[in-house]
Amino acid sequence: MMDRVRVVLSHTSHPGNIGAAARAMKTMGLRNLYLINPKHFPDPQANSLAAGADDILAQAVVCDSLDAALQDVVLTVGMTARLRDISLEVKTPRAAMPEVVQCAQHAPVALLFGTEMSGLSNEELMRAQVLINIPTNPDFSSLNVAAAVQVLCYELSVAAAAFQPAAVPEEARASHQQMEGYFAHLEQTLTEIDFFSSHNPGRMMQRLRRLYARARLETDEVHILRGILSVTRSYNARLRKRYQEEHGE
Amino acid sequence: MMDRVRVVLSHTSHPGNIGAAARAMKTMGLRNLYLINPKHFPDPQANSLAAGADDILAQAVVCDSLDAALQDVVLTVGMTARLRDISLEVKTPRAAMPEVVQCAQHAPVALLFGTEMSGLSNEELMRAQVLINIPTNPDFSSLNVAAAVQVLCYELSVAAAAFQPAAVPEEARASHQQMEGYFAHLEQTLTEIDFFSSHNPGRMMQRLRRLYARARLETDEVHILRGILSVTRSYNARLRKRYQEEHGE
Repeated sequence: MMDRVRVVLSHTSHPGNIGAAARAMKTMGLRNLYLINPKHFPDPQANSLAAGADDILAQAVVCDSLDAALQDVVLTVGMTARLRDISLEVKTPRAAMPEVVQCAQHAPVALLFGTEMSGLSNEELMRAQVLINIPTNPDFSSLNVAAAVQVLCYELSVAAAAFQPAAVPEEARASHQQMEGYFAHLEQTLTEIDFFSSHNPGRMMQRLRRLYARARLETDEVHILRGILSVTRSYNARLRKRYQEEHGE
Repeated sequence: MMDRVRVVLSHTSHPGNIGAAARAMKTMGLRNLYLINPKHFPDPQANSLAAGADDILAQAVVCDSLDAALQDVVLTVGMTARLRDISLEVKTPRAAMPEVVQCAQHAPVALLFGTEMSGLSNEELMRAQVLINIPTNPDFSSLNVAAAVQVLCYELSVAAAAFQPAAVPEEARASHQQMEGYFAHLEQTLTEIDFFSSHNPGRMMQRLRRLYARARLETDEVHILRGILSVTRSYNARLRKRYQEEHGE
């Protein structure tokens, strides 16, 4: 699916942005880059900022027209900084992606980005079927073109569930009996050290139960916490024993 | 709300990345940038890549430690390139943001990013309560740090727009300093009762940090847990004193 999505950069001025866009694409699993009349390309600055995504640059298709870059494309998604543009439908990245993923199951789809200074021309926007606006701070909407590529490719990859993390096996959670065993052990220990002389036992145990309920303790962790209680009590017992022995009690 | 979220960049090597991060933040409506020991800052390259977000750079707080950067923070979200990290909870950006937005209604929250080469250190990761992994191409997961800032700030801004306040007001969460104070107190107490004679201190404290990170302690709960530690230690001290007095030591 991701192999049927192409990123099309129109008239990019700074080769560094082309390199950073290639890097952004590759991290998100895209590899088809089309460049319409880039000002400087190839360029060492593009490779420097690609930071290992040089293969994307090497395979990039340089075109002299939008029509050439959109060859065979069935859905063109244009980026716009405006919320309302030439009365075409303007969507958020998230709202637009399901259609991109759906179309790219079968046929080429293009994500089209304009120049650093002025974005896409009206003529270019008219070639798109959907426009996307990345919602930004109204006082500072100057998103870098490679940053916009990053956000779009990220949203696409999430929508495609391209790199959904494998379910991490959950640690063995402590059972009811283990939790109750811990709370009984805790209460005994707190009684022994006279903690309850200044705190209401019922209310205090309720607070502690609430805290540890939120932590969702694992079996291993119950062992650690009970280990601390056991060491606390045996340390106390040693001190008391030493005292009693010395007194022959 | 966005004014209570700070972006913390730890030991950033390239000033251009600091500038690009500032630009990314400002487009998404964030403005609090904290820099822990940046290699070069201020630097003209940072301003060049900030492309108009110079105010963010001018107000950036340069710190010499993580503790200084996390002053008063009640939720620290660490970025990791790994899916499983020191067994702390690892979430996707989207899954993590509702809690960030919720916390930032009332108190400071930090989004913590590591170095370009190696990300956050284990010690830094252990100060976080939540880790975020941006799902990437397993064959090329090299996301630029400013691009990661862009993705996180974008997700945050989308989540903030969709935010519905929780029906139940949240309890006052413990701050970074309160949590660190608790862990120091816990470690002292465990040392005193010889708990570490049979357990590796570093590894054990890591396990305990992980457990209490998951619990998202409230200020009151930190007081209860430290109360238990204080009573444990004073009980020990009384036993020891009684013993020593009887022996005229």
